[in-house]
Amino acid sequence: MSIGKLVQKAYFILIFFLVSNSYAWAFKAEEPCKRLVLYYHDILFDGTDGVNATSAAATNATKLGNTTFGMLVVFDDPVTKDKHLVSPPVARAQGFYFYDTKYVYNAWFAYTLVFNSSEYKGTINIMGADLMPEKTRDLSVVGGTGDFFMTRGIATFETDAVEGIKYFRLKMDIKLYECY
Amino acid sequence: MSIGKLVQKAYFILIFFLVSNSYAWAFKAEEPCKRLVLYYHDILFDGTDGVNATSAAATNATKLGNTTFGMLVVFDDPVTKDKHLVSPPVARAQGFYFYDTKYVYNAWFAYTLVFNSSEYKGTINIMGADLMPEKTRDLSVVGGTGDFFMTRGIATFETDAVEGIKYFRLKMDIKLYECY
Amino acid sequence: MSIGKLVQKAYFILIFFLVSNSYAWAFKAEEPCKRLVLYYHDILFDGTDGVNATSAAATNATKLGNTTFGMLVVFDDPVTKDKHLVSPPVARAQGFYFYDTKYVYNAWFAYTLVFNSSEYKGTINIMGADLMPEKTRDLSVVGGTGDFFMTRGIATFETDAVEGIKYFRLKMDIKLYECY
Repeated sequence: MSIGKLVQKAYFILIFFLVSNSYAWAFKAEEPCKRLVLYYHDILFDGTDGVNATSAAATNATKLGNTTFGMLVVFDDPVTKDKHLVSPPVARAQGFYFYDTKYVYNAWFAYTLVFNSSEYKGTINIMGADLMPEKTRDLSVVGGTGDFFMTRGIATFETDAVEGIKYFRLKMDIKLYECY
Repeated sequence: MSIGKLVQKAYFILIFFLVSNSYAWAFKAEEPCKRLVLYYHDILFDGTDGVNATSAAATNATKLGNTTFGMLVVFDDPVTKDKHLVSPPVARAQGFYFYDTKYVYNAWFAYTLVFNSSEYKGTINIMGADLMPEKTRDLSVVGGTGDFFMTRGIATFETDAVEGIKYFRLKMDIKLYECY
Repeated sequence: MSIGKLVQKAYFILIFFLVSNSYAWAFKAEEPCKRLVLYYHDILFDGTDGVNATSAAATNATKLGNTTFGMLVVFDDPVTKDKHLVSPPVARAQGFYFYDTKYVYNAWFAYTLVFNSSEYKGTINIMGADLMPEKTRDLSVVGGTGDFFMTRGIATFETDAVEGIKYFRLKMDIKLYECY
């Protein structure tokens, strides 16, 4: 093979590599380009604990079913890297959830992770069904801003602790598959 | 033309084809990569029909205008492949809508299609305006999980039946333009 | 260098240019492909001004904190190209916001910009945190329909005027980075 042909082949391989990668990105992102494992702490206001509470029911449950169907909770919750409520928050989760099934607890979330630290500045926007009876459930990361400009991905929820209606903790495994 | 040149040209055509396709994908998806035509059945709770009802008003209408401005309805509705309410559901639609105009009925939706059958497992997340006076109206598919991992597209609504405030059926034509 | 080599090099440069562009699009959209600067006018219903009001509180504030935590407002607001409320609207903004912090005013929005003019027909869907204490704050454009088919981007909010709780005006700088 002549040197010319070798160079040509090298060009081809280089270009094919670039194009293949482009395809891989476009059609199949097999590994997250960024991943954040976070813990979300929700302390529901009971009318008296205004100092500690981080969320409050904006609507009462309806009389449909027996699992607080229609109760909508607005939250501004601390998010930590480990399971401890008292650890310094690395983000706030601001948004709402409501319960939406008649005979089992099942919720629907839309919220923003707000980062404002030396590590990250920006937001991640998430929505989807929190199918509470399942061990893990996936919601959609639909956008982001700042350090998370235009991101998309999956937020996997796992209930990590529940103390009655008063407190619950979710593990949120945020996997971003589109990073700019 | 020498064989070397022919090979070179073939490389070029192949690569151009790949790149063009990549562009086509990136800038213009002319045909959906997946399409689902579904029927959504909403039976509003009237305080007495808890067995059949699939949705309930979490807030009362405000006194602004005369078309239930501000009434927010949470739903867990069956979704079928044909128009029959009693057909086996192929998915659940979980989320909420509210009415948001003063003198005509007009709604805004955010919800998740939850699939859990032998055919599909996963979710599709949708939000947008349901401009009810128009025959068809488009909402955004903003994400998906499981078999619908990271999908995007358009959900076209068409009112298929209305029985007072008690029951309505929407045809949802889900066209996915980004499939992984 | 022979002509053959030159042609080969030209091919290579052309292809590299196409691929690089593809990469640029995929990984970094530096400039918006479309930009709209709009003004959003919100006139909250006080129970008596039904003619002028464009929004209404669907829930009362909770007793958590002192900045109307949990008050959820549904709106159908005019959107204009300049700051004047009486200018002909170029779009409607339909959706909701709620206040979600205890001791400062801070909101969360999800809504649709509805265009129906000779210039644009279609919708843009937006969600995210409105971190009111900051001069500008970014929300996510998560989808679009019609002339804004499948778009994504950033909506930057800036408070432009506030007249008590009765009226506020936001500058919305909509930067679209994915255009089909």
